[in-house]
Amino acid sequence: MDIPIKEDERIDDLERNGYRIIQNKNRFCFGMDAVLLSCFAAEGEKKRPGKKNVKTAAKIADLGTGTGIIPLLLFGRLCERDLCPQIDALEIQEEMCDMASRSVRLNELENWIRIWHGDLCEASQLLGKGQYDVVISNPPYKKRGGGLTNPDDSKAIARHEVLCTFQNVAEQAASLLKNGGRFYLVHRPERLTELITTMEQVGFQIKRMRMVHSYQDSKAVMVLIEATRGGGAFLTVEKPLIIYQRQGVYTDEIREIYYY
Amino acid sequence: MDIPIKEDERIDDLERNGYRIIQNKNRFCFGMDAVLLSCFAAEGEKKRPGKKNVKTAAKIADLGTGTGIIPLLLFGRLCERDLCPQIDALEIQEEMCDMASRSVRLNELENWIRIWHGDLCEASQLLGKGQYDVVISNPPYKKRGGGLTNPDDSKAIARHEVLCTFQNVAEQAASLLKNGGRFYLVHRPERLTELITTMEQVGFQIKRMRMVHSYQDSKAVMVLIEATRGGGAFLTVEKPLIIYQRQGVYTDEIREIYYY
Repeated sequence: MDIPIKEDERIDDLERNGYRIIQNKNRFCFGMDAVLLSCFAAEGEKKRPGKKNVKTAAKIADLGTGTGIIPLLLFGRLCERDLCPQIDALEIQEEMCDMASRSVRLNELENWIRIWHGDLCEASQLLGKGQYDVVISNPPYKKRGGGLTNPDDSKAIARHEVLCTFQNVAEQAASLLKNGGRFYLVHRPERLTELITTMEQVGFQIKRMRMVHSYQDSKAVMVLIEATRGGGAFLTVEKPLIIYQRQGVYTDEIREIYYY
Repeated sequence: MDIPIKEDERIDDLERNGYRIIQNKNRFCFGMDAVLLSCFAAEGEKKRPGKKNVKTAAKIADLGTGTGIIPLLLFGRLCERDLCPQIDALEIQEEMCDMASRSVRLNELENWIRIWHGDLCEASQLLGKGQYDVVISNPPYKKRGGGLTNPDDSKAIARHEVLCTFQNVAEQAASLLKNGGRFYLVHRPERLTELITTMEQVGFQIKRMRMVHSYQDSKAVMVLIEATRGGGAFLTVEKPLIIYQRQGVYTDEIREIYYY
């Protein structure tokens, strides 16, 4: 397929199902957090009790999709198990939307993944209330103001809560989901207290949590969370996810996640 | 010192400062949770910024002291750093109080540790509001009802929320503490969401959290938490604490905690 590539853009191989992604070296490029979140969400969906042998076509919304990395990786992981989902991915930055749309076409996934240009704070108006089985998000981690110089900057929008707060993300996720739906997210451990209280307030119950540490003996740098909308959840804090066994050398688990 | 020992009681060596403790084989005996909590709290107190070379005589309250294990271990750890605290330890079960008091005398620590017989739900009325630097607690983990057969049972009172809920513990801790005071506790990860929301509601900020896992690749079985009363805290989720390197073999860290 002949997909136009613009100046400063490049095509990267995702090493999964032969999928590729278009990124711009001057814009926000995906990081390990998106990769770990996709894997964490796919695990959650695969493990659902009673769903083992059912080919579900889950409806998934990705809030703040950026390059579209999460839809691509999640689709790849779920399809391997015959759980091919329908994914609506929302992004406010037009340039990122355009790139993400071209990546979807590049991988011939137009029937499965749809990129929407719009404001995350209006997600449920745009996409529909109570219609999704899964919401996933890798939201901006940092509070507005923390060392922020240029709020128009594409990278700033992805990293800082310039255009949406975590409260917005949680409210929209709750509104989009069916009863019993799952919300998967990655965030910073420093904000765990606020994440939990905000999610509780909008009707989520935290079901699964995993701390990500750079090394076995260092503090957590990310937290992966699965919450459910309604229904009694029993929280499990899973085994820690360690990135490096020593400097520059990934652990076996990280290698499996990347090259599985 | 000649301390009377009753039937079914035994004296155990704590392998710390030569301290010993009286326990009754038919009652609740201390577990690894109390040992890890004492160590976690001592670390927190030792690390306090600006307190490095100051010999503080912190005032500490232990809520639900049982055999008195936490006062003994915490006193031992802090004294090694010339931070000898005054500890008031509260326990509702008269028989446990009696045992704990004899353990204090056995170790000649009557000037430092005082065992109080009373209800945790009235702790701040009994001990005084806003007078403590530190509150520590290894509270009952399980909700009332969960498989509970005999609510008069000494072990049931220590393990189930028969006589107090976590809400009671958090409220009393908040009431006992000075502004800026620290609350250290150990609990079950399954209840993390409730712990956090309850502590936030009564005015705590979570500062430090550590997950305890039996093995590197198993879910968390305990969570250690440090919260502060007032003041802006920045949460750190510390490196995971792993108990066994393989079946029956403790990790180096656990060995250090026990035999340091």
